[in-house]
Amino acid sequence: MTITEKAMLLKKDSTRLAAAGVDLRNKALNDICNALIDGSAEIFEANKKDLKDAEENGLAPAVMKRLKFDENKLHASVEGIKALIGLKDPLNIITLKRQLDEGLTLVRSTCPIGVIGMIFEARPDALIQISTLCIKSGNCCILKGGSETKRTNKALFDIIYKAACLAGLPEGCMAQAEERSEINELLTCDKYVDLIIPRGSNSFVRFCMDNTKIPVMGHADGICHIYVSAEADPDMAISCIIDAKTQYSAVCNAVETVLVDKSIAEKFLPLLSESLKKARVKQNGNAEVQKIIYCNLIDEDGYKKEYLDKEISLKIVSGIDEAISHINTYGSHHTDCIITKNESLKEYFFTMVDSANVYCNCSTRFADGFRYGFGAEVGISTGKMPPRGPVGLEGLVTYKYKLTGEGHIVAPYCDGTKNFNFEDLQ
Amino acid sequence: MTITEKAMLLKKDSTRLAAAGVDLRNKALNDICNALIDGSAEIFEANKKDLKDAEENGLAPAVMKRLKFDENKLHASVEGIKALIGLKDPLNIITLKRQLDEGLTLVRSTCPIGVIGMIFEARPDALIQISTLCIKSGNCCILKGGSETKRTNKALFDIIYKAACLAGLPEGCMAQAEERSEINELLTCDKYVDLIIPRGSNSFVRFCMDNTKIPVMGHADGICHIYVSAEADPDMAISCIIDAKTQYSAVCNAVETVLVDKSIAEKFLPLLSESLKKARVKQNGNAEVQKIIYCNLIDEDGYKKEYLDKEISLKIVSGIDEAISHINTYGSHHTDCIITKNESLKEYFFTMVDSANVYCNCSTRFADGFRYGFGAEVGISTGKMPPRGPVGLEGLVTYKYKLTGEGHIVAPYCDGTKNFNFEDLQ
Repeated sequence: MTITEKAMLLKKDSTRLAAAGVDLRNKALNDICNALIDGSAEIFEANKKDLKDAEENGLAPAVMKRLKFDENKLHASVEGIKALIGLKDPLNIITLKRQLDEGLTLVRSTCPIGVIGMIFEARPDALIQISTLCIKSGNCCILKGGSETKRTNKALFDIIYKAACLAGLPEGCMAQAEERSEINELLTCDKYVDLIIPRGSNSFVRFCMDNTKIPVMGHADGICHIYVSAEADPDMAISCIIDAKTQYSAVCNAVETVLVDKSIAEKFLPLLSESLKKARVKQNGNAEVQKIIYCNLIDEDGYKKEYLDKEISLKIVSGIDEAISHINTYGSHHTDCIITKNESLKEYFFTMVDSANVYCNCSTRFADGFRYGFGAEVGISTGKMPPRGPVGLEGLVTYKYKLTGEGHIVAPYCDGTKNFNFEDLQ
Repeated sequence: MTITEKAMLLKKDSTRLAAAGVDLRNKALNDICNALIDGSAEIFEANKKDLKDAEENGLAPAVMKRLKFDENKLHASVEGIKALIGLKDPLNIITLKRQLDEGLTLVRSTCPIGVIGMIFEARPDALIQISTLCIKSGNCCILKGGSETKRTNKALFDIIYKAACLAGLPEGCMAQAEERSEINELLTCDKYVDLIIPRGSNSFVRFCMDNTKIPVMGHADGICHIYVSAEADPDMAISCIIDAKTQYSAVCNAVETVLVDKSIAEKFLPLLSESLKKARVKQNGNAEVQKIIYCNLIDEDGYKKEYLDKEISLKIVSGIDEAISHINTYGSHHTDCIITKNESLKEYFFTMVDSANVYCNCSTRFADGFRYGFGAEVGISTGKMPPRGPVGLEGLVTYKYKLTGEGHIVAPYCDGTKNFNFEDLQ
């Protein structure tokens, strides 16, 4: 089947999956756990072949580590599914119940989005996590994993899909795309696919955003800032910056630029510079910064760079307004933080910074669905429309309006013989 | 200024408007009421010129009626703004408050979307309604009204904009586009405009959706269905169908297709046909329908048509599953209704029909923000992602995550020396 044909089948079955009760969805998740354990030999076998190819292709050890799927990762994945089973059903939650007039009742309740196209990095556990999140939220999914773990992905998909169908979910509950060329076809399926969630490099996410009519949830860049205000605790600021830059540099919520208030720059920058040096972070700054500390020279364009590495941009700002203006101009609306003891400065920063996550006195690395207690995460959205920020189960639903009458018609409400009597119920 | 320059200015000032408290926003709305009353002579004068041109261009009386802006419409508009002032502030509503660990607190609260491009029909009251809704929700807006009321739009915009600025809203709180050619430029402003809301013909809305990277909220088609089930009250069914078709045929929530259950078709169709004839509704159906009643022959493609007139498509379906399948295939995911006394059939229909509004035993014409008690409406969205369905004030906001710590870093949570202690607050 082509991707379009698969998408068509999923669209057809999407309302069937939406109608599956939470017990059935949880049963399917439980059966998937068992099937993964039963099929582990097969999965490890496939993964060994993928790893062998990866080694031959000279992939870096850090990448190899992500590609590897062993007993530990299987165990963690199964635990993840069990935790997911325990999460509250995100469907059929009533968010509005209103009597419009006697006998005419409006209900707004959550329902699945429909068909989601998920394109993700070469990390076999990602396939398990994403497919089970979609089942829990009643969404059909088309899964395209990284080609470096092609065999592992196929083995995992076959096991998960078979278990889901045997548990009673519709045939069109999920499908797999195996070739990179199928991504382009997937992006044209706007009739059948309701949402695309791409994970991967900036350029890849941007490519998806620029080449489809389907809504795309995600983020291309992750240019996060920490603004050290005049009223910052310098030790706290340094600790947060070092954590945000070095704890894991290659991720979107790592800090890329530190903005230092002019009034404390002379004292603070040397302290920060020393800590960064110790942490082996390459320091970049403009001429103004260079007057105070030793660093590589960058121009304004340098502040648009996402390093994804142990490298950082430094800038001196005249005050909070310049900090906010810099963040809103050069940032990616992902996660931005102020270090301050001043409560009203914090509130001002929270309101004026146009980002999905605005922080005070902590590391930017907290921007993550798990760390927010969502129990799971499909990605982080830097778009303005909901879902925004870290997206977990709750972000994978939409809603519909359900109106029940007793033969109500609008004519009498239009000619004034009847009036609405709005009354919120419950 | 070009539209791009205007959009850039609005984007810059959008966080400033987001920071404006509800008292200031309400004051601006109140000042706008007074300014409109004070400037009424000027507005009526401009409107007279627009009407004269429209008459010379031979516009239909129904259209002329919509273009006209007189004392009555001014009064209604002012009343509308006063009602808007009375509505609850949609901003800064806390939708999640969670302690992640001691001293580390996450808050999710509503905030404006940012900059909204509104393109709407030639109806001067629409400009007032939309601009004031944007002010109340803290959104900057670029307004492009129908060219038939160009002079009236300019007079209204000048008065509203001046009053808003004098009240203390930022200079970039709103802008006007006056030329049709500026719409194309607006659609390219994806760096500065967060949402486009187009109202108008199907082809125009589709044009917007197909020609921009900016999210578009709205609906192209409004192909609504009423399914008359085997357990329907025939009188109720006919009353709802006649209202949904004839009370106002030219609107998106009017019914276009009636699906009749096979088991009652022989009895029901002749009754319905007689009522439709009395209401001067032209009837279309396939060969199966023609066996029972007199109507014009249409093929399957005929069921894809939105008449926007006193004309209707009729079809016989074998049962609820064919009805649902027809609606999900030929419909526009706007508003679809079942007439039935059977509660479980209704629930099945509500779950399986993939539309923003699903109804039972009432007219499809209730799909409207005012009739839902939202107090206002900017449009109806048939997209899957929120906001979906009729969009009022509440749909014009998004949210951001605010995290406050005491110097918290992620390292100890990653190496296992610290654990999250999620606790929902309030």
